[in-house]
Amino acid sequence: MRRKEFTIEQEAEIEAFLAEKTYGFLGTISVDGDPHITPLNFVYDNGYVYFHGSLAGEKMKHLKAKTRVSFNVAEEYALIPSYFSDPLLACPATAYFKSVTVFGHAEKVSDPSEKAKALSLFMNKLQPEGGYTPIIANDALYKGQLKAVAVIRIVPDRVTAKFKFGQNLEQSKHEKVQALLEERGTNKDVETAELMRKFCPFHTDLT
Amino acid sequence: MRRKEFTIEQEAEIEAFLAEKTYGFLGTISVDGDPHITPLNFVYDNGYVYFHGSLAGEKMKHLKAKTRVSFNVAEEYALIPSYFSDPLLACPATAYFKSVTVFGHAEKVSDPSEKAKALSLFMNKLQPEGGYTPIIANDALYKGQLKAVAVIRIVPDRVTAKFKFGQNLEQSKHEKVQALLEERGTNKDVETAELMRKFCPFHTDLT
Repeated sequence: MRRKEFTIEQEAEIEAFLAEKTYGFLGTISVDGDPHITPLNFVYDNGYVYFHGSLAGEKMKHLKAKTRVSFNVAEEYALIPSYFSDPLLACPATAYFKSVTVFGHAEKVSDPSEKAKALSLFMNKLQPEGGYTPIIANDALYKGQLKAVAVIRIVPDRVTAKFKFGQNLEQSKHEKVQALLEERGTNKDVETAELMRKFCPFHTDLT
Repeated sequence: MRRKEFTIEQEAEIEAFLAEKTYGFLGTISVDGDPHITPLNFVYDNGYVYFHGSLAGEKMKHLKAKTRVSFNVAEEYALIPSYFSDPLLACPATAYFKSVTVFGHAEKVSDPSEKAKALSLFMNKLQPEGGYTPIIANDALYKGQLKAVAVIRIVPDRVTAKFKFGQNLEQSKHEKVQALLEERGTNKDVETAELMRKFCPFHTDLT
């Protein structure tokens, strides 16, 4: 299900990122109206975000009171020190990152077969090597368990994505930051330099 | 500034985690009442969370309309496959993680000297190697820049922390999961086994 906000290439980038990241951050509003954040494992499938939790948990209370949610998945790739682009000012210090946010409403998945299907997607993503009895709704092994777990689907009405990799830099600074990242070479620096090249003409600042 | 919710040891664990992580997730409520999440670099100092942003940005609009916020910092250490503790059921599949959430309200830091101090803390954390002119409010280099940037302080009224490292497992399963993590040895598995031992008597499920 392609979203009209994105090109096919952008949507593929976003889906690859959501498939690779194991957890995201659910934003809900508590009964007393305050913003809450819960880090959660999730799976993104066919345009929906799925997560699960305890039926008696705090999240479920929030979702009963207010179904509007947001869900963010982000990763910082590299901290970019100010001196990569300016010898004096601290201000250019920044971070390069990917961030995708889904805005929508949360729906409880109630049908046991649908629950089993969603939890199977979950297992496929997070435990692809298998090593468990497949989750089937009418299997005696899972019947009680499926009743006891809450499965939630987020139905998005808007998705935003920001892949920040120095798209705003003029060419000479862009090239200098790439070279300095490759020279530093810690953590994801080399990958970050590659992403700078990849997203340079693409300008994935989609927010 | 110690919070009464935690022992000295717990508070030290939380502060070490917040000092180590470069970014967190800000929960705000938009003008139309929806929950929003923004990933942000931050610094935690003397009981406050500081971040900065564009004066004209969307976050600032949210904070003007509603100052209540939450801020979460989390890290997943290891995915624990179901077969580490059960040969049949998928249900024990889980993740071990650290998660700290600050609930409170956001205040704009307006005084240029205070802004310069907060941004200096930021630089000390994220660019400890230096390489820039120190940020001083009346330095001509920074005067205009300080005016143009918004600096926000979160004043917490509650902090919760959950460090989930198998505290609920009975002893034989606890030991088995430790051993299997060490055997698997990918990513942070060995560190995770150490944290299982460290937090075993501690039961840091503080939520």
